[in-house]
Amino acid sequence: MVYDLWYWTGIPGRGEFVRLALEAAGLPYRDRAREPNGEEAMLRDMRAHPLCPPFAPPYLVAGELVIAQTANILLYLGEKHGLAPDDVAGRLWVNQLQLTIADVVTEAHDSHHPVAAGLYYDEQQQEARRRADDFRNSRMPKFLGYFDAVLAARGDWLAGGVRWSYADLSLFHLVDGLLYAFPKRMETLVRQYPRVTELHARVAGLPELQDYFKSDRRLPYGDGIFRHYRELDSA
Amino acid sequence: MVYDLWYWTGIPGRGEFVRLALEAAGLPYRDRAREPNGEEAMLRDMRAHPLCPPFAPPYLVAGELVIAQTANILLYLGEKHGLAPDDVAGRLWVNQLQLTIADVVTEAHDSHHPVAAGLYYDEQQQEARRRADDFRNSRMPKFLGYFDAVLAARGDWLAGGVRWSYADLSLFHLVDGLLYAFPKRMETLVRQYPRVTELHARVAGLPELQDYFKSDRRLPYGDGIFRHYRELDSA
Repeated sequence: MVYDLWYWTGIPGRGEFVRLALEAAGLPYRDRAREPNGEEAMLRDMRAHPLCPPFAPPYLVAGELVIAQTANILLYLGEKHGLAPDDVAGRLWVNQLQLTIADVVTEAHDSHHPVAAGLYYDEQQQEARRRADDFRNSRMPKFLGYFDAVLAARGDWLAGGVRWSYADLSLFHLVDGLLYAFPKRMETLVRQYPRVTELHARVAGLPELQDYFKSDRRLPYGDGIFRHYRELDSA
Repeated sequence: MVYDLWYWTGIPGRGEFVRLALEAAGLPYRDRAREPNGEEAMLRDMRAHPLCPPFAPPYLVAGELVIAQTANILLYLGEKHGLAPDDVAGRLWVNQLQLTIADVVTEAHDSHHPVAAGLYYDEQQQEARRRADDFRNSRMPKFLGYFDAVLAARGDWLAGGVRWSYADLSLFHLVDGLLYAFPKRMETLVRQYPRVTELHARVAGLPELQDYFKSDRRLPYGDGIFRHYRELDSA
């Protein structure tokens, strides 16, 4: 089966967490909104599933299944393709990690859009300065410290064992996005949380992802979740 | 087995979504942090699971399992006790709905705390006015309209069929919290989205929840996710 991934074009966004899992597992997929007239097609397609409508992209169409919410898509792919442990404890643990990563992703977005996603950054820059201060000083160390402690207890990968789970790929992308958005702050934090930094390097070096990283399927950062504004960053 | 639920005392909070599922399913549990010295015990207990630490409450201890993240706890309870359909499509669909509800919950919280959860409301009241405006005018209708459309397609319950799933209980509590926090705005919206209002009434009338609603196990709203500030509400 070829999966259909639907997500906004032009940014890695939340779609990237799904892409990384599909790519690292070598699963065939089409990035449908990136095809000609793809975003129009996506808006049409979203209305074509009245019994299980996605509230928002990303969503994955897998034969008869229409699956939205990033963590839910990864839960499905993880179970079906062995991208997470298959015992109850391991499966729930990886889902729990993914949901915690999703929380940081929302907070990273809101650090530059604390008032409304529908307004421009310039219209909420004042508020963004205050929220980004709190995100950098209080939230980033709390979250990165948490994942660092998990790696200290578990070893190379968040669920233990000798192979990555989809949560490791997601943590890689989270750290990667934070390095892009908050380079000064991260210069401090990568020293404090070396295991998270090592995990980032470990995923960056996975043989199964090298083609993807070199391809134009991996989108550059832009006006998405992870944005770099100099005035929002500081060591 | 008697479940141990751990969550902050004094507010319904995110713990309430778990409580409703436990209560409606008639599952025995202890609300551990509400026992004498319970919050102290919780802070100690959170440090006692280094291999699978909760990032934050709520979390559920089920024998050997330690499960955090509200949607993850409900996924577990749903599978184990039949509180969601047991086919792949139905299970993922209910999880997807729960994750969408979780997104609204975060936005409802941030409508009064758009800068930092660690600061008082008074310290971010200016920012809260702007964020609450957007939440009321743009986000609330979008989310409630989404759930209304699902009920229009599915019938009495979000996953179809003749019995509630845990997502129905959660949507009840979401609507209930919004009615408390934004009474003026909801007076308008309940007319526009009657199916969501009917779902709220349907769950409020479930025989299996009447004892709970009358008990002190159901906590009143307070300084939690759903807060009523007159200056943040408007029709």
